[in-house]
Amino acid sequence: MYFPSWLSQLYRGLSRPIRRTTQPIWGSLYRSLLQSSQRRIPEFSSFVVRTNTCGELRSSHLGQEVTLCGWIQYRRQNTFLVLRDFDGLVQVIIPQDEKTEALRLQYRYLDLRSFQMQYNLRLRSQMVMKMREYLCNLHGFVDIETPTLFKRTPGGAKEFLVPSREPGKFYSLPQSPQQFKQLLMVGGLDRYFQVARCYRDEGSRPDRQPEFTQIDIEMSFVDQTGIQSLIEGLLQYSWPNDKDPVVVPFPTMTFAEVLATYGTDKPDTRFGMKIIDISDVFRNTEIGFLQDALSKPHGTVKAICIPEGAKYLKRKDIESIRNFAADHFNQEILPVFLNANRNWNSPVANFIMESQRLELIRLMETQEEDVVLLTAGEHNKACSLLGKLRLECADLLETRGVVLRDPTLFSFLWVVDFPLFLPKEENPRELESAHHPFTAPHPSDIHLLYTEPKKARSQHYDLVLNGNEIGGGSIRIHNAELQRYILATLLKEDVKMLSHLLQALDYGAPPHGGIALGLDRLICLVTGSPSIRDVIAFPKSFRGHDLMSNTPDSVPPEELKPYHIRVSKPTDSKAERAH
Amino acid sequence: MYFPSWLSQLYRGLSRPIRRTTQPIWGSLYRSLLQSSQRRIPEFSSFVVRTNTCGELRSSHLGQEVTLCGWIQYRRQNTFLVLRDFDGLVQVIIPQDEKTEALRLQYRYLDLRSFQMQYNLRLRSQMVMKMREYLCNLHGFVDIETPTLFKRTPGGAKEFLVPSREPGKFYSLPQSPQQFKQLLMVGGLDRYFQVARCYRDEGSRPDRQPEFTQIDIEMSFVDQTGIQSLIEGLLQYSWPNDKDPVVVPFPTMTFAEVLATYGTDKPDTRFGMKIIDISDVFRNTEIGFLQDALSKPHGTVKAICIPEGAKYLKRKDIESIRNFAADHFNQEILPVFLNANRNWNSPVANFIMESQRLELIRLMETQEEDVVLLTAGEHNKACSLLGKLRLECADLLETRGVVLRDPTLFSFLWVVDFPLFLPKEENPRELESAHHPFTAPHPSDIHLLYTEPKKARSQHYDLVLNGNEIGGGSIRIHNAELQRYILATLLKEDVKMLSHLLQALDYGAPPHGGIALGLDRLICLVTGSPSIRDVIAFPKSFRGHDLMSNTPDSVPPEELKPYHIRVSKPTDSKAERAH
Repeated sequence: MYFPSWLSQLYRGLSRPIRRTTQPIWGSLYRSLLQSSQRRIPEFSSFVVRTNTCGELRSSHLGQEVTLCGWIQYRRQNTFLVLRDFDGLVQVIIPQDEKTEALRLQYRYLDLRSFQMQYNLRLRSQMVMKMREYLCNLHGFVDIETPTLFKRTPGGAKEFLVPSREPGKFYSLPQSPQQFKQLLMVGGLDRYFQVARCYRDEGSRPDRQPEFTQIDIEMSFVDQTGIQSLIEGLLQYSWPNDKDPVVVPFPTMTFAEVLATYGTDKPDTRFGMKIIDISDVFRNTEIGFLQDALSKPHGTVKAICIPEGAKYLKRKDIESIRNFAADHFNQEILPVFLNANRNWNSPVANFIMESQRLELIRLMETQEEDVVLLTAGEHNKACSLLGKLRLECADLLETRGVVLRDPTLFSFLWVVDFPLFLPKEENPRELESAHHPFTAPHPSDIHLLYTEPKKARSQHYDLVLNGNEIGGGSIRIHNAELQRYILATLLKEDVKMLSHLLQALDYGAPPHGGIALGLDRLICLVTGSPSIRDVIAFPKSFRGHDLMSNTPDSVPPEELKPYHIRVSKPTDSKAERAH
Repeated sequence: MYFPSWLSQLYRGLSRPIRRTTQPIWGSLYRSLLQSSQRRIPEFSSFVVRTNTCGELRSSHLGQEVTLCGWIQYRRQNTFLVLRDFDGLVQVIIPQDEKTEALRLQYRYLDLRSFQMQYNLRLRSQMVMKMREYLCNLHGFVDIETPTLFKRTPGGAKEFLVPSREPGKFYSLPQSPQQFKQLLMVGGLDRYFQVARCYRDEGSRPDRQPEFTQIDIEMSFVDQTGIQSLIEGLLQYSWPNDKDPVVVPFPTMTFAEVLATYGTDKPDTRFGMKIIDISDVFRNTEIGFLQDALSKPHGTVKAICIPEGAKYLKRKDIESIRNFAADHFNQEILPVFLNANRNWNSPVANFIMESQRLELIRLMETQEEDVVLLTAGEHNKACSLLGKLRLECADLLETRGVVLRDPTLFSFLWVVDFPLFLPKEENPRELESAHHPFTAPHPSDIHLLYTEPKKARSQHYDLVLNGNEIGGGSIRIHNAELQRYILATLLKEDVKMLSHLLQALDYGAPPHGGIALGLDRLICLVTGSPSIRDVIAFPKSFRGHDLMSNTPDSVPPEELKPYHIRVSKPTDSKAERAH
C-alpha cells in the first residue's frame, strides 16, 4: 500500500529533471513478444501524459525531450535512478547542475530523504547527545534554559525586535545568553550549559543564518586552562567513531604569534607555508624599497615559501598574485626562485647577494623548485597580505593536484592573549571591546587599564579548527567596580541598560568564565559539508528566506494593531523627507 | 577572600526586610566586660548608618525600627538568619509577606541561591537528561532543531511577530513545531524529538509564559497505543528517584466518560466524589423541577456525594454553593442528607419518597454524615456544574483538615476520543478544529466527515496528571486529499498558507503521529511548586515582563527604521478615527 506511493510520489517530485536526459538500459521483452507474434504494436501512450514507455527508448531518441511515467525501481544518492513501467526499465540521470540549492530548499522535505542529509542530521543528534552526557552526567553541569524574549543589549544593532502589546515597547531576540549565564553564576548554579538558540540579524550573508545554535557553557571558580581542558575533553568524548580520534591537549598560540606566523587569527594549521621574518637578511641591502620599508617603524621584510611553486605555479598565477597584493594591500610582492636559475618577473631579485641568497635558503628551508613570495612593509599589513596569499596559493596548488590539506585531518588550535580593546572604526580615538565588555583583562595587564588600556590583553580565548573559528570565550569580570569602570569610563556605554548585571555583581559574584561553541559550523566541518545549511534541517537562504514556506511574509494590518506598529514602506519615508 | 564577600553582599540584598523586626538572642559579653570595669559605655553607632549594635538590643526596643550592620553567621531557608557584629548576635526574622514574588523576580539572581530554586532547576535538568537518554539512546529518536523564525499559521492570532528588513514582511514565532515535525516524517527521519521552545502571545495570563518549553515528539508508522506506551515508558524512565515510581500503563477514559464522571476533560483522579446519574430514580417523581428537567431532551438528574459533608460543611458553605450554581450556571442545587435527619435549605427534599431515598443511598454509596449535592438539567451543563462543585468542595474539606488529595500521589490519565470539530464560538453553524486541523479522524468515523462532521471523533489524546493537562497529541492526517478536504471544505481555511505542507503530503507521507508534553507544567507538578515560574530560571511576570531587566523596553526610532515599522501609539489611532 504505502511503499509504492512513496516512490511514485518521489518520482513526481523529481519529474522536471527526469524529463530531460534519459538512456535505455534494455529493450522490452513485452514489446518483442508482440513483434514476434506479428501483431501491430498498440499506442501505449495515447490519452495519457507520457510520450513514451520506458521500454521503447532507443539511441534514436537522443536529444528528444520525453515524458515517462512509472515506479522507481532503484535509486542511488541523487545522481541516477531506474524508472520502471510495464514495458521495461530506463536509467534516468539527474543533471547535477539542475538540482540547485534553491530547489533543494524549496523541496526540503524531499532533500531530507537523501543519504547525506540523513547522515548529517543523525550525526548532529548523536554528537550533541554525547556532549550532554559528558557535561551533565560526567561533570555535573546543569542544563538551564534562558529566555529568548529579552532586552536589547547596548549596541545590539544586530538584534531582531519583537513588538509587545504595550505601545512602543519591544522585546529583542538575544545574540547569546551571555548576561543570563553570568547571572546564573551569581545565583550559585556553579556549572551551567545549554544548547542555546541564538539570533543575529546581519541581513544577507552567505553561509550565515539569522538563527543559529551554540553549545553555551559557564563555570564558577574556573580559570582559562580549566575551560580549555573541559572543551578538549568534550570534543574528544563526543567525536564520531568513524573519524580519527581527537588528540589532546590542543596546541596554543598567542594572538601575536598567529598573526606573525599565519597572518590571521584563525589559521589553517593543517599545512605549513608559514610566514618568516627575513628583515635581518636585508639590514644592509641595496634594494631601494626594502631599505625604505626597514627604515620605517614596524618596517619588516617577510616571506612565505610555496613548495614546488616553480613546478605548479604559472606565470599568470604570479601575475594575479602581484596584482592582488597591489590592489588590496597596496603592497609589492617579489617572487624569488632561490634555488632555480629562473627569475622572471622579479628583476629586483637580481640584486640579492649570494650571501643573502644562502641565508634565505637556510631561513626558509627552501628546496629545489620552491618559490619564495617576498614582501616588505609594516608588520601587520605584511603578515595579513602573506596570510591571504598562503591560502590563495594553497587553493592554486590543490587545483593542480597537490594535496596540502588532508580532508580527514582535524587540526585544532587555541588562540589566546587577544587585545582587550580595539580602536573604534568610526572614531579611532575611542575604544570598543575586542569581543564583549564582560571579558576580564589579562591578570598581568590590569594596571594598563588605568594607563594604556589599548595595550591591555584580555583573558579571551578562541578555538580554531582547520582555519575556522568554532568557539570563543573568556574569563569574565566578577568585580562590579572594575566592570563599571570599563563600561562607563573606558567604553562610554550607557550603564543603565546593564544596571541589573552590575547590581548582581555587587551582591557577590564568584570568579567565573565560559565559552560558546558554534554547533552548526562544528558539525559542518565534522561532516565535511560545503555549507552549514547542509547540517540544519530547515535552513534559511542566504537572504534569510524560508524558500519552502515563503517566509518572511506579509501580515494583514489588523494583526499589527495589537502591537501598535505600522509598516512604513521606503516610499513613505521618502515622502516624509519630502515634507 | 571570596566567601565573606558573598555573605555580606547577600545580607545587603536582604537588608530591607532585616531592618524591620529583630529579636535579641543573648547579651553582649564585650558590653558586660565594659560595665564591670565601671567605664562609660562608648557610642558605637556614631558616624555610621546603624542605629544599634547587634549586642545591645533588648525587649525594650520592641516595636522600634533599628538598622544593624554585620556579617551573616547563620541562615535557614529564607525564614531567619543570625546577624553578628563585634558586640553580639541577633536573630533576624524575615517577614514572609515581605519577600513578594515581584521582589523575587527583580532579584532573581539572589532568589536562585535558595535551596528550592536550586533543587527545582537541577531536578529539571536531570529529568530532561533522562528523557533524552530514553528517546535517543534507547529508542533511536533523532534530536532535530526546527526554526523559530517562521511563517504565521492560519488563525495564528497568538503568534509574536518579528519584523524583517524587507518592507512589510514579517517572521512569526511559532506556537509549536507542528508543521516541521510532520515535514520531517515526510523527509523520512522516522523518529523525531526536540526539547522545543515555543511562543504564545496571550497578553496577561496568570501562570502562563510568553515563551515555554515542550518535549516535542513525532513518529512514523505508529498508532495511538504506540505513542501512549512510549510516553508511559518515558515518564517511568525519567521519574525522579526520590518520588514513588510511576505505575504503567496509565488508565484511559474517553472524552464522553470523563465529562459524565468528572464534569471536565482534565479530571483530578486522586479522589472520588464522582458524578452519578440518578435520573432513573426520579422517573415518576412529583418534584416539579425534576419532572421538568427529565421531560426535556438530554435532561438528567445528577449528583455528587460529599463525604462527611454534614460534619465539615457549614450552612454558609451550602449557601455559597447554591449561589455559585445559580449565578454561573443558572442551575438549582439541592443539598440532601440521605442518612442524617437534618434537611435545612432543601425543602424539596422532603418530597423524596423513602423508596427513592434508599435507592439513592445504594447508587451513591452514601455513609452517615455524607451530603449529596443534587442537580437537574441538560447533561453537559449538569456535569460541568457538578465538576466545578466537586473541586470547590474538595478545597473546602481540605481547609477543614480532611486530606482528600495525597500530595505525594501522581495520578495519570489518558483521555481519548475527543470530538474532531467544535462549533465556532462566533458562528456556531461553522466548524473549527477541536485541537488542530492536522488531527486524523477516528478510523470508525471517517464516513461522518462527509455526512455529519460534527459527530466525528478524532485520534487526539490528552495526558492528564492530578487535574492538569500535561500533554496532548494525535495521529495526523497523512493523505493530502483528506487534509485538503478538511482545511478547505470543512474549515474554510486559506489553504495557500499551507500549500507547502499539502504538497509534501502529496509526495508521499508515512502514517505518523506524535505528542507534546508541557515541560514547565510537568516539572511544576513533580516538584510540587505553586507556579511554573518556580521551575524557570528567568520567568516573565504574568504581564509578560522581565522584572529584573525591565523588559520589554522602548527602542529608539532609528533602530526601527531598518525594519520599516513605526510605533502607532493608541492616541494616534484615536486621532486616525477622529479624521
